[in-house]
Amino acid sequence: MSPEPIPPIDASKIPRFSGVRTFARLPLREQAPTVDVAILGAPFDGGTTFRAGTRYGPAGIREASLLLRPYNDAVDVSPFAICQVVDAGDAAPNPIDITQAHRSIQESAAEIHDAGGRVLGLGGDHSVSLPLLRAAAAKHGPLSLLQFDMKLTHGTMFRRAVEEGAVRGDTSVQIGLRGSTYEPDDYTANAELGFTTLMARDFDATGVGGAIDLALRTLRPPVYITVDIDCLDPAFAPGTGTPEAGGLTSRELLAMLRGLARRIDIAGADVVEVSPPYDPTGCTAIAGSNAAYELISLLALSQVAARGGG
Amino acid sequence: MSPEPIPPIDASKIPRFSGVRTFARLPLREQAPTVDVAILGAPFDGGTTFRAGTRYGPAGIREASLLLRPYNDAVDVSPFAICQVVDAGDAAPNPIDITQAHRSIQESAAEIHDAGGRVLGLGGDHSVSLPLLRAAAAKHGPLSLLQFDMKLTHGTMFRRAVEEGAVRGDTSVQIGLRGSTYEPDDYTANAELGFTTLMARDFDATGVGGAIDLALRTLRPPVYITVDIDCLDPAFAPGTGTPEAGGLTSRELLAMLRGLARRIDIAGADVVEVSPPYDPTGCTAIAGSNAAYELISLLALSQVAARGGG
Amino acid sequence: MSPEPIPPIDASKIPRFSGVRTFARLPLREQAPTVDVAILGAPFDGGTTFRAGTRYGPAGIREASLLLRPYNDAVDVSPFAICQVVDAGDAAPNPIDITQAHRSIQESAAEIHDAGGRVLGLGGDHSVSLPLLRAAAAKHGPLSLLQFDMKLTHGTMFRRAVEEGAVRGDTSVQIGLRGSTYEPDDYTANAELGFTTLMARDFDATGVGGAIDLALRTLRPPVYITVDIDCLDPAFAPGTGTPEAGGLTSRELLAMLRGLARRIDIAGADVVEVSPPYDPTGCTAIAGSNAAYELISLLALSQVAARGGG
Amino acid sequence: MSPEPIPPIDASKIPRFSGVRTFARLPLREQAPTVDVAILGAPFDGGTTFRAGTRYGPAGIREASLLLRPYNDAVDVSPFAICQVVDAGDAAPNPIDITQAHRSIQESAAEIHDAGGRVLGLGGDHSVSLPLLRAAAAKHGPLSLLQFDMKLTHGTMFRRAVEEGAVRGDTSVQIGLRGSTYEPDDYTANAELGFTTLMARDFDATGVGGAIDLALRTLRPPVYITVDIDCLDPAFAPGTGTPEAGGLTSRELLAMLRGLARRIDIAGADVVEVSPPYDPTGCTAIAGSNAAYELISLLALSQVAARGGG
Amino acid sequence: MSPEPIPPIDASKIPRFSGVRTFARLPLREQAPTVDVAILGAPFDGGTTFRAGTRYGPAGIREASLLLRPYNDAVDVSPFAICQVVDAGDAAPNPIDITQAHRSIQESAAEIHDAGGRVLGLGGDHSVSLPLLRAAAAKHGPLSLLQFDMKLTHGTMFRRAVEEGAVRGDTSVQIGLRGSTYEPDDYTANAELGFTTLMARDFDATGVGGAIDLALRTLRPPVYITVDIDCLDPAFAPGTGTPEAGGLTSRELLAMLRGLARRIDIAGADVVEVSPPYDPTGCTAIAGSNAAYELISLLALSQVAARGGG
Amino acid sequence: MSPEPIPPIDASKIPRFSGVRTFARLPLREQAPTVDVAILGAPFDGGTTFRAGTRYGPAGIREASLLLRPYNDAVDVSPFAICQVVDAGDAAPNPIDITQAHRSIQESAAEIHDAGGRVLGLGGDHSVSLPLLRAAAAKHGPLSLLQFDMKLTHGTMFRRAVEEGAVRGDTSVQIGLRGSTYEPDDYTANAELGFTTLMARDFDATGVGGAIDLALRTLRPPVYITVDIDCLDPAFAPGTGTPEAGGLTSRELLAMLRGLARRIDIAGADVVEVSPPYDPTGCTAIAGSNAAYELISLLALSQVAARGGG
Repeated sequence: MSPEPIPPIDASKIPRFSGVRTFARLPLREQAPTVDVAILGAPFDGGTTFRAGTRYGPAGIREASLLLRPYNDAVDVSPFAICQVVDAGDAAPNPIDITQAHRSIQESAAEIHDAGGRVLGLGGDHSVSLPLLRAAAAKHGPLSLLQFDMKLTHGTMFRRAVEEGAVRGDTSVQIGLRGSTYEPDDYTANAELGFTTLMARDFDATGVGGAIDLALRTLRPPVYITVDIDCLDPAFAPGTGTPEAGGLTSRELLAMLRGLARRIDIAGADVVEVSPPYDPTGCTAIAGSNAAYELISLLALSQVAARGGG
Repeated sequence: MSPEPIPPIDASKIPRFSGVRTFARLPLREQAPTVDVAILGAPFDGGTTFRAGTRYGPAGIREASLLLRPYNDAVDVSPFAICQVVDAGDAAPNPIDITQAHRSIQESAAEIHDAGGRVLGLGGDHSVSLPLLRAAAAKHGPLSLLQFDMKLTHGTMFRRAVEEGAVRGDTSVQIGLRGSTYEPDDYTANAELGFTTLMARDFDATGVGGAIDLALRTLRPPVYITVDIDCLDPAFAPGTGTPEAGGLTSRELLAMLRGLARRIDIAGADVVEVSPPYDPTGCTAIAGSNAAYELISLLALSQVAARGGG
Repeated sequence: MSPEPIPPIDASKIPRFSGVRTFARLPLREQAPTVDVAILGAPFDGGTTFRAGTRYGPAGIREASLLLRPYNDAVDVSPFAICQVVDAGDAAPNPIDITQAHRSIQESAAEIHDAGGRVLGLGGDHSVSLPLLRAAAAKHGPLSLLQFDMKLTHGTMFRRAVEEGAVRGDTSVQIGLRGSTYEPDDYTANAELGFTTLMARDFDATGVGGAIDLALRTLRPPVYITVDIDCLDPAFAPGTGTPEAGGLTSRELLAMLRGLARRIDIAGADVVEVSPPYDPTGCTAIAGSNAAYELISLLALSQVAARGGG
Repeated sequence: MSPEPIPPIDASKIPRFSGVRTFARLPLREQAPTVDVAILGAPFDGGTTFRAGTRYGPAGIREASLLLRPYNDAVDVSPFAICQVVDAGDAAPNPIDITQAHRSIQESAAEIHDAGGRVLGLGGDHSVSLPLLRAAAAKHGPLSLLQFDMKLTHGTMFRRAVEEGAVRGDTSVQIGLRGSTYEPDDYTANAELGFTTLMARDFDATGVGGAIDLALRTLRPPVYITVDIDCLDPAFAPGTGTPEAGGLTSRELLAMLRGLARRIDIAGADVVEVSPPYDPTGCTAIAGSNAAYELISLLALSQVAARGGG
Repeated sequence: MSPEPIPPIDASKIPRFSGVRTFARLPLREQAPTVDVAILGAPFDGGTTFRAGTRYGPAGIREASLLLRPYNDAVDVSPFAICQVVDAGDAAPNPIDITQAHRSIQESAAEIHDAGGRVLGLGGDHSVSLPLLRAAAAKHGPLSLLQFDMKLTHGTMFRRAVEEGAVRGDTSVQIGLRGSTYEPDDYTANAELGFTTLMARDFDATGVGGAIDLALRTLRPPVYITVDIDCLDPAFAPGTGTPEAGGLTSRELLAMLRGLARRIDIAGADVVEVSPPYDPTGCTAIAGSNAAYELISLLALSQVAARGGG
Repeated sequence: MSPEPIPPIDASKIPRFSGVRTFARLPLREQAPTVDVAILGAPFDGGTTFRAGTRYGPAGIREASLLLRPYNDAVDVSPFAICQVVDAGDAAPNPIDITQAHRSIQESAAEIHDAGGRVLGLGGDHSVSLPLLRAAAAKHGPLSLLQFDMKLTHGTMFRRAVEEGAVRGDTSVQIGLRGSTYEPDDYTANAELGFTTLMARDFDATGVGGAIDLALRTLRPPVYITVDIDCLDPAFAPGTGTPEAGGLTSRELLAMLRGLARRIDIAGADVVEVSPPYDPTGCTAIAGSNAAYELISLLALSQVAARGGG
C-alpha cells in the first residue's frame, strides 16, 4: 500500500454530477501507482434466457455510486483511505460469445490479482461470477462461497465451480433462495454439493443475526461473496433479469454484509444482475451501489489485515 | 382429472419470451380435455372512481407469470402436475356497462364451475369479486371470505355478497386495512357484517403467524380468498387504483397464503386491482403473479383433496 | 376555530380527479375565514448539490393527496372537522437566490402563525426547514426537533437553527440516519449539538415502540417534526435528491408519527425532499402525502388541545 | 369586458412551478368579475373502450400550460390582455354514468355562455365534445364543425350532434383522419352527413395552406373547433386513448389553427383525448397546451370582434 | 382460400383489451383450416451488439396491434376478408445460439410456405431477416429486396443473402440509410452488391413519390420487404437497438408501403428491431404494428392476385 | 496535429457498452499529446427557472454518443482521423453560484483555446453559452452567432455577449424561434441587437435550403454555433427545460448543420439544454449527440483548414 492512497474526487470542489464517471469517483487504475481493491466491470449478459440488459449494469452502478462518501460509519472504516481502491474499468466481453467473454473477464481479474489487489466484480449476468471465482481461486486457493441469490437455476455455474475445485461446497452458504423451481430435485441436487441454504421464507425466523451466525459458522476463509441483486424483493430491485416477489429488503442485505466485517477474510466479491433498462426509478442501481460499498469495505479490511495492518 | 395433465410449455425447449402469452405458459382451456383449476381474466375497471387501468391487469399478470416454474417448494407441491390447470382466457365485460360486465364474468366463471373446475379470477377492479363470489357460492354454498385489502370502501360489494348469502360475514376475515376513511362509522358498519378485521398497523404485533392463526380460527370451509393487490405497500404495488402507504410486504402476503396450505378447503380465489399503466417497474404485476401462483397451489391442493386425492 | 370548519370537497359529489388541485381537496386559505392548520408549499431546490427537482414536490404531494379521506382511524381523529385546515398555496421563492427564497418562505409561514395557525410545510429541499423553523420558533419559542432523515450533511441548517436558538439540541432527536459520510467527525460534530440519534441500522433492535419511547423521553414541547422523505428506503421513496439504500419502511414511519398523537404538543412540521421528476411510480409522493396527513392530524390535535378543546 | 382584465400570475415575481395550478396561471373564474373566455375541464373518460386515462387530461394540460406566456407572436395578439380569460375549473362528471356526466358538462358550459363567455373545453375523451357542442349551439345556433381527428369511430356523437341540429354537416370539415376502419361503409356513412374530409395521407399534397383554404371555403360562422390530440402522430402525442401512426405534426396543427385567426368567428372549441398516464415524456400534454393556447387566441379575437372591438 | 376466412375477434362483442393476445386479434394458425398470410414472431436478439430487447418485439407489436381494424381505407382492401390471415405464434429460437435460432426461424417460416401461405415476420433483431429470406427464396426463387433501414452495418446478412442467391442485389433498394459509419468503404462495399440506395438525407429532395418511383423502377418481382423500425427517427421509434437522429417519419414510411399496393408482387416481409424495453411511450410498437398492417395488406393482395383473384 | 490522432476505442474489439464513458469513446484529454477539437462538459443548470436537470446533460449525451462511428458520410469526413479530437471532461461549476460557475466554464474552455484547440461545449442550461462565447472570442475575436433556439427569453446572455463585444449582432442569425413571449417588445428588443431571425413557423416556406442560404448570407467568419435542443419539437426533444410544440425536426437541424460544411469557418460551438431526467425515451440525448457529431465535423474541418490542411 502506498502510504497515501489517491482519494476520490472531492465533492466540495467538483460537484458530484460533474466529470467522467468512475465508481465513487475513485481514480482509474492507470492513475494510481498501486492497487489494493479494484472495481472491475463485467458487462456481459449473453447467458441470459429471459430479460437481457445487465450489460449496462456496471454503468448503472457507477452512476448510482456518485453519492457514496468516504467514511463507512456502520463498520467504522474509511475504505478509500486505509488502502488504494481504484476503478479498473470494464473487461471486454464479446456479447455473443460466452466462452471468449468469460475468458476476457477472467484475464482482467487475474491481472489485478497478480498486482496484489482484490477484485470487486460488477455484472453482468450471474454467469460472470464463474470467471471471477476462477481468478480469485487461482490466487487464494479454494473459496468458501457466500451467495445471496433468488434462484438455484443460476447455480449451474456454481456447480461447475465446485467441480473445478474453485469453490468448496461444504463451507458455502446460500441466502435468500425462493420461488418456484422446475422440480423438487433441484434442491436435492443443490444440497448434494454440500451448500448450506437459508430460504428467504425462513429469514423471518432467523433474523439478520441468525443469518450472520449461520454464515460465520459455515464459512471458512478465504471467502468469496456474490450478491445477485435479485435476492432483494422486486420492490427494492425491480431492475433485474428474473424478478420474484418475497425477497429480502436492502436493510437486511446491508446488515448481513456489515455483520461480517473484521470477522472473516474476504478474498473477492461481486454484485451481479443489476439491469438498468428495467430500473426506471434507479433503486436497483442504488441498492447495488450500496452493497458494492459494503463489499469494498470488507475487501479493504481484509487486504489490510492480510498485510498485518488495520 | 386426467392422469396426465397437460403441462406448461417447457422453457428449456421454447424460451419464456416466445409465443402467445397464457398464464404461466399453461394450455388454453380448449387445449385440455378437463379442467381442475382455471385462470379466468376479468378485465373490467368500470367501477373505478379514481385511476382506471386495471382492465389491463390480466394481460399484465400473464406477462409477469412467464417466469413461474412448475414446483412450489414453499408448500411442496407441483400444482400443474397434480391436476389440470388451464388458462381460460378472459370474460368479455362491456367496459361501460357494469351490470352486463358482472353478468359476463359470472357466466364465464359458472361455466368452469359446471365443468368441475375451480376458478382463480384475475381483475380488473375489486368489483369483479362480486360475480366471481356469486358463481363460486352457487356451486359450493355460502363462503367464508378471506380478504386481503387496503380500504373498506371497496367493501360495498362484500356487503352485498353477505346480504345475498354468498358470503358468511361471521366467518370472514379482512387483513391489511389501513388509511383514512370517510367517517368512524365506516368501520362500525363493517363490523356489523360480522367480519373479523386485522388492520395493517396491528400486523407488526401479530406477525405472520398470528395472522394465519386468526384466519384459521375464524374461517370455515369452503373459503374464498380475494387478494386486492393494494393490501401491499405502494413500494411493492405502485400499479394499483388507490395506492396508500403503510401496507404489507410481499413476503408477508406470500407467507400468509402459504400458511393455509392443506389446512382448509379453498373453493375459489382472485387477485384484483393490478393496474399496468401505473406499474412502470413491473413489480406490481410480479407480486400479483406470485400471489396467483400461491392461490393456484391452494386451489389445486383443495381440488385434489376434494376428490380424495393429494 | 369557527364552529363549522369548511370541509374538503365531497368526493361523492365531485370526483377526486376533478378540479384545481389543493391538498386533500381542502379549501384555499382565502376561502376560509379562519385558519388552524395550513399547508404551505415551499417549492425551492436551489440548495441542492446533486439531483434537483424538489421544486415540484408541493405539486406532487398535492396530486397524491387527492385520495386522502376525512377520518384518521389510526389515531381516531377527523382533523378537517375538529379545526379549520386550509391549503395556503405556495411561498414564492426565487429559484436562484437562496437568501430571498428563505426569506419568502419564512414570511409566508409567519403570516399563518400570526393568524393563529400552525404550519405544515411541503418542500422543496431540506434547506426550507430553516425558514419554517425560524417562523415557528418566533411564535412558539425554542423548539425540540424530531428529525426523520437519512444524512447528516443536510444538517448544516439544523446546526444553524441551534446556534440561532430556534432549536434546542439537547431535547432533539434524529431517526433514520445511515449511509456513508465524509469522515467520522461528522457524527462527533452532530453529537456536540446535543442531538440524540437513532441510526437506521439500529432500528431493528429498538423497533417502532422503542423509537417512540426514545423520542418521547427526549423531546420537550413545543416540538417541530421534519420528515425528510429520504429517511425511507429508495424502494419506498425513489423520488428524492439523494437516495440511499437501507432505510425505513413507510409502515415504520407512519407508526412512529401515530405514536405521538395526544402525547406531546406539535407546533409545526414539514415534509421535504419529495422529487417528482425521479418518481415514475408515484410512490414517493404517496408516502409524502400520507406522512403529511399524519402530521396534520398531530397539528390539529395540538391546536385543539392548546385552545383547551379536543 | 372589464377595461383591465386580471392577468396571469407574473412569472418574474412568482416562479412558474409555484402555487396551485390553473391554466396558464390565469385567475380562477370566481376571482374575476367578468368572463370572456373560460377554460373548462371535462375530466370524463367513461366512454372509452380501449385505454382509459383522459380523466386526467385537464390536470395534465394545466401542468403543461405553466410555460405559456401572454403574447402570441404568431398571430400578434395578447389574448389575456384584450379580454378576460379565466380558468373555470372542472365540471363534475360522474365517472361511471355517461348521461349524468354529459349533463354536468353541458350545464357547466351553459353557465359560462349565459355569462357572456366563450368556452374552451379540455377533455376527457372525445364524447365530451357532445355536451360542449350542445351548450355552444344553444347560445350561438347551429355550428360548423372543424374537427381535427384520427378516427371516424369517435364520430358517433358528431352524427348525433348533426341529427340534433347542433352541428351543420354540410359546412363541417374533418382533418387528419387515417387508419383502419371496420368497413368501407364507415366513410360512406360519414360522407352522408355532408362532412368534408381531408385524410392525413392527403395532407402532404395539400400542405398546410391547402388545408386552411379548404377549411375556410367550407366553414360558415359560427365555428366550433374540436382538436382530438390523436390527430397528431404518436411521436407527437403518445398519451392518448387510441394512438395510430401516420398522423400530423404539431407544427402542422398549430399552423392550421393560426391560419384561421381574424378570418372566421369561432364560437367554441375543445382539446380532447390527452391521457397523462400514457404520456411519460409529457409531449402530449405540451402539444395539447399549445393547441389550447391557439384556440384561446382565436376565441379571444372572436369575442372582441363580436363586441365590435379588437 | 376458404370462401369465408375466419375473421379477427369482433371488438363490438369482446373488448379489445380482453383475451389472450394474437396479432390484430386474428385466429391462431391451429384455429384456421387454411393459411394465406401468417404472422410469425422471431423473438431473437442474440446478434445484438448494443442494446438487447428485441426478443420482446413480437409481444410488443401484438399488444399494439389490438387497435387494428379490418378495413384498410388507404389502399381500399380488407386484408382479413379477402384471404385467411392467421397468427402463427413465435418460432422457438435459442437465445444464446444464433445458428440454432436462425434454423428454428427458417423452419417455422418454411412450414408456412409449404402450406401455401406468405409470411410476415416480426423480429427480433435484424439478423432474423436472413432465415426468413432463405425460406421465402426457397419457395419463390431469388428475391428483390426492399430494405427500409438506418445503418449498413446490419447489412452483413444481406451480403450473405446475395452471395447465397436468395437476394438479387441489382434489383434491390435501400431506403433511409443515414448516420456515421466505420469508413467510406462501407458504402463502396454495399454498392458493389448492386444495391440502389436512397439516403435519408436525400429523401426531402425526392419526396415519397420519388422514392416509390425509384423502388418500382428498380425492383423486380418477387419482392421481399424488410422494415427495420430504426429507419424512422427516434422521435417515432425510440424503442430500437441503435437509434439515430435524422430518420424518416411514420407518415413517410406508411405512404411508401401503400404506394406499392397492386403494383408489384410481394412474396414476404418483416418488421424488425422493435425493442419494447426502450419504448416507454409505446410509439415504436405502434409504428411497427401499423407498418405490419400495411405489409399484410400487400401480402394479401399479392396472394389473391397469385391465385388469379383480387 | 499529430500525424496520427489517437482514435476512439474500436467497437469490434471492445463492445460499445463497455468501459468508462467518454464522448464517442474518444481519448480523454490527458491521454492525447495534442488537441484540435475538445468536447467540454458544462454541467450547470443554476440559471434555470422552470425545470432543472440539464446538469446531467453532458453525461446523457456521452451515453448516447457511444453509437457514433468514425466516418461522417453526409459531409464526407472522418473527423477523428483528420485531427485530434478529445474528451476534455467537465468543467467544475458550483451548482448554486452562477458567477463562479461561469468563471469555471470560461477557464476550462480558455485552457483548450490556449492549447490550440477548438471547443464543443455540452450544457447545461443555455446560460453556459456565455462563458463559452467569451473564451472563444478571446481567442478568435468577435464572433457571428448562429443560434438554433426556441425562445428569446434565453437571449439575455446573448444581449450581454453583444454588449461585451464577444458577438456581432449584425452578422448573427437565429433559427427556430417560436412560442409565446411576454410582450411584442421582446422581438423588437431582439431585432435592435441586429440579429436576423427565422421563426419556426416560417421554416416550411424557406425549407432547409433557404435557411442555409440565409445563414451563409448573413454570417461572417469566425462563427459560433449554439444549438439549444429545444429548437426541436418536443416529439424529438422532450428532455429539455422549457419544451414548446411546433419545433424543428432532427432531420431539418442536421441538414442545416451539414449545409455549412467547408463553407465557413466555425470557431466554436455548443449543444445545450439536454435534460436527461425528462428524457425517458432517450431521444433527446440522441438528437443532442448527433448534433454534436455534426458540430465536431465542422470544427475539425475548420481546424484543418485553418492550418492550411484538409
